[in-house]
Amino acid sequence: MNFYCKLDNAWRENNSLVCVGLDPDLDKIPQHLMSRPHPVFDFNKQIIDATADLACAYKLQIAYYAGYAIEDQLTLTIKHLAENYPYLPILLDAKRNDIGATAEMYAKEAFDRYSADAVTVNPYLGGDALLPFLKRKEKGTIILCRTSNPGGDDLQHLVVAGRPLYQVVAEMAVTDWNENKNVALVVGATYPRELGEVRKIVGSMPLLVPGIGAQKGDLEGAVKNGLADNGAGMIINSSRGIIYAGDGPDFAQDARKATEGLRDAINQYR
Amino acid sequence: MNFYCKLDNAWRENNSLVCVGLDPDLDKIPQHLMSRPHPVFDFNKQIIDATADLACAYKLQIAYYAGYAIEDQLTLTIKHLAENYPYLPILLDAKRNDIGATAEMYAKEAFDRYSADAVTVNPYLGGDALLPFLKRKEKGTIILCRTSNPGGDDLQHLVVAGRPLYQVVAEMAVTDWNENKNVALVVGATYPRELGEVRKIVGSMPLLVPGIGAQKGDLEGAVKNGLADNGAGMIINSSRGIIYAGDGPDFAQDARKATEGLRDAINQYR
Repeated sequence: MNFYCKLDNAWRENNSLVCVGLDPDLDKIPQHLMSRPHPVFDFNKQIIDATADLACAYKLQIAYYAGYAIEDQLTLTIKHLAENYPYLPILLDAKRNDIGATAEMYAKEAFDRYSADAVTVNPYLGGDALLPFLKRKEKGTIILCRTSNPGGDDLQHLVVAGRPLYQVVAEMAVTDWNENKNVALVVGATYPRELGEVRKIVGSMPLLVPGIGAQKGDLEGAVKNGLADNGAGMIINSSRGIIYAGDGPDFAQDARKATEGLRDAINQYR
Repeated sequence: MNFYCKLDNAWRENNSLVCVGLDPDLDKIPQHLMSRPHPVFDFNKQIIDATADLACAYKLQIAYYAGYAIEDQLTLTIKHLAENYPYLPILLDAKRNDIGATAEMYAKEAFDRYSADAVTVNPYLGGDALLPFLKRKEKGTIILCRTSNPGGDDLQHLVVAGRPLYQVVAEMAVTDWNENKNVALVVGATYPRELGEVRKIVGSMPLLVPGIGAQKGDLEGAVKNGLADNGAGMIINSSRGIIYAGDGPDFAQDARKATEGLRDAINQYR
């Protein structure tokens, strides 16, 4: 099943737009797990098992696994997801970008080594650099458009022919890069008005929306402006707000409650 | 020693602007190495030992190590470089980018896990996302500016207030991001005129210049337009042109000849 179909199915199956972000900071995960052979995998597994009926996707932030040199636990986590919840899309948040043969290697990393359903990528190098990702028709390519950080303005707000760069990127995504119907965009919840502008440009294209929770995005504004005509179209990510909801023995149940709360808060605006 | 000093020293010590790019494609490395426990490390080690008096830096393209799941051989290669040629800068070509705590993890990956002297990064997310790299005063942050691929035009040639985006990025690098004197820029040799434009904007800032060799950049034009006032300022990378110069038992000597040839070709224009 291709990425769009898998996502569409997950949105409906769990009646949820919530994406659980697995960004495991070793200083923040419950300390009783640290004596285990694979503490991060154990942490992820318990969070996943407690939330899999409430989420539309899981996003794994590769920087954490790379920074700690625990790629093995990333692999274990993805295997657990794929084996137990094969209907839920696995997003590798890697923001990869390079040219030619090197971009091919990054596509190999995301889709072959880690078997992700989709990967985040950076558009600064242009369309030919995106092609190794885009040509994987069954896989999703999630392109940075308007990021959730204040400094995103530095480049993304530069005015090109009368409109900000992030809107030009959104336009390219629709016009030039989505031949295989497998593109999504990253647009932060921290800028709901701009999320609305992107939605107008991209029609029903899925949007991965970070910035809820720890980053204090405006949930109501984000949902109302970001929804597609079908009442979905958004993958609303929360990482810290869910996975660090508790830090005791009941952390997974705390994560469940946080996921359920976010799902319901989102659904009231749909 | 900080990145600028280390680089300056290496340029003078070996009278070379050549950076050897270690992008090991398993289909292209000599097949007699493949039966060894660490074929890529053995390949890199022989290339390094044959070229270390001719190069100003080594660039390791992390996509290859990630795609093949051989991070251990990247670590071994860097250890070999650091132990035997501590005066040569080690560049991790990773084109990383993210925000906040996640960007911190990427800085940790590059500088703590791999002990690189510098890492390539993508500017699309703006200055606050670059900060976790920039604040490592002893380390270099090499920011994408004008990439060597044709599709680089898609964003980098968009006109902002009368000039192309890549020039705006060059200006930001000088004005906003180089407080710690540790920034360099990536500018492809494939566009020598644009290399000259960037040089005018950035003064003596080091430029990492890919696109020589397999990508058929114009060497004379690139060197003449890219040199800083001190007759250096450029890290001219060749990967495939050097490491695949031969594929038999003498591949390391073939790589040496290719490196020497490129060094001399560059030096005639300095």
